[in-house]
Amino acid sequence: MKTKICLIGIGKIAVDQHVPAISGSDDWTLAATVSRVGTVDGVPSYTDFDQMLADHPDIPVISLCLPTVPRFEYAAKAMAAGRHVMLEKPPGATISEVHMLQAMAKDHGVSLFATWHSRAAVAVQPAKTWLADKSIKKAHITWKEDVRKWHPNQDWVFEPGGMGVFDPGINALSIITEILPFEMRLQSAILEFPTNRDTPIAAKMQWADNISGEFDWRQEGSESWDITLETDGGLAELKEGGARFFIDGVEQPVDGLDEYPALYKHMKTLVDSNTSDIDVRPLIQVADALTLGKRISTDAFAF
Amino acid sequence: MKTKICLIGIGKIAVDQHVPAISGSDDWTLAATVSRVGTVDGVPSYTDFDQMLADHPDIPVISLCLPTVPRFEYAAKAMAAGRHVMLEKPPGATISEVHMLQAMAKDHGVSLFATWHSRAAVAVQPAKTWLADKSIKKAHITWKEDVRKWHPNQDWVFEPGGMGVFDPGINALSIITEILPFEMRLQSAILEFPTNRDTPIAAKMQWADNISGEFDWRQEGSESWDITLETDGGLAELKEGGARFFIDGVEQPVDGLDEYPALYKHMKTLVDSNTSDIDVRPLIQVADALTLGKRISTDAFAF
Repeated sequence: MKTKICLIGIGKIAVDQHVPAISGSDDWTLAATVSRVGTVDGVPSYTDFDQMLADHPDIPVISLCLPTVPRFEYAAKAMAAGRHVMLEKPPGATISEVHMLQAMAKDHGVSLFATWHSRAAVAVQPAKTWLADKSIKKAHITWKEDVRKWHPNQDWVFEPGGMGVFDPGINALSIITEILPFEMRLQSAILEFPTNRDTPIAAKMQWADNISGEFDWRQEGSESWDITLETDGGLAELKEGGARFFIDGVEQPVDGLDEYPALYKHMKTLVDSNTSDIDVRPLIQVADALTLGKRISTDAFAF
Repeated sequence: MKTKICLIGIGKIAVDQHVPAISGSDDWTLAATVSRVGTVDGVPSYTDFDQMLADHPDIPVISLCLPTVPRFEYAAKAMAAGRHVMLEKPPGATISEVHMLQAMAKDHGVSLFATWHSRAAVAVQPAKTWLADKSIKKAHITWKEDVRKWHPNQDWVFEPGGMGVFDPGINALSIITEILPFEMRLQSAILEFPTNRDTPIAAKMQWADNISGEFDWRQEGSESWDITLETDGGLAELKEGGARFFIDGVEQPVDGLDEYPALYKHMKTLVDSNTSDIDVRPLIQVADALTLGKRISTDAFAF
């Protein structure tokens, strides 16, 4: 029997990823939505979360894909009502929020899954396995895309808490913190803030152990979502956001579910075993950048 | 018998606080110093930390009071050499650094003490005890001082990683995270950056549960280092950086060691019991502010 789930925040990511992943799953059935703006055909829709909770004691799981800043209050309310919670990335606007949600999940005896969709990309686990016995000499992240294409007119990404270029950049950070066999220590960062915005549009980062990264939201045309690692066993390359894996230029076979179906499958396992999966390290890397980084001003940005 | 200790970074805070605290203690003897610039009369002095470690296998404890950014490398090296480590606040330039040091202390079986000197102020524990059974309606931090007085010509406080006004502000955050019976969740912050500097000179913060704070480094004359808490049992006030405690305007009797003697006493207990004391929450509050805060430009600052 499928488990009922409620989706909160019917925006671009919900329509593009969450709804199809749930529809295509044998584990889940979309039983309600809550959103100020969006609905899903054939699914009971609410604008008031309290009303949905009151009407649907039969829905044990809530998946949150609304923007970062309002997400905490919904997650806290859902767990207080005894519901399991799945969070889009990043799991909070601050590290304290994530620590508090983690404590609440424990207090209320519910499962909390802080998802990192890029970690679920098919080539990530093969890369991690291959790297486990290698010595890593150098690594570089290139994460560049066009904000106008991926966040069209979404001003919230440039508002405090929206994280700017780290909204996509945290995907790279979620992959590299997963595959490296050691922890990353940021040593310096340069953050470019548009004069009219509150979050960075580009960043260059340098960690210990010869790890570096370039993040840019001003790239036009196709995306660059790549991580390269020079090792004593050859050159490893993760391309296309973790979808493809190359060793010394030779593509390696990979298979498995797409990112969001894999996340929903994992959520089922967590709920069934009443466990949580919360790794705050990618968010800590962003906080480290904003704590230690040098800020410089750049051209104003308009969508 | 006194335990030998080596002090690294003989600058203002070492001379003002660490050296007198060690000299006045029955637990410790200052057996060496490492510093590019300072020395302590009658104490073997080094500029090269490796040389000190090689010459002094008899010194089991290292206390670090150099600026935040270089501190990690010294702490890592000291622990790798099997020495116990005491860190001035803040314990790292980033949260990742503190997590890594925490893991190293465990790996090397040594004690690590991330000190928060303001937590050791005499009125902090009495305030915590008094607050434990009260309902807190509202709290406010006022932390204002003259940076020219407390950090004369110390440009590093305005360099990336120097944390700006959060260098003193983290003292307030170390106290309030200790005395509140719940966790603090930042909701918004406004950070004022001088146009010629990389860290904020002033900040206003608003947390959930009616907690707010004002931090300013531009105050001339005497300091304001106060925390007020409105409760169902009356008004509690911590004044002078945690040195004095008032309930409904009536000063409460407090006693105990001064801050730094208390820290060194606690370090002795940690070393004797081979345990560590690391609470990263004050630093997380600063990272939260720099992650979520809105940045505004203000007048250039010169010492």
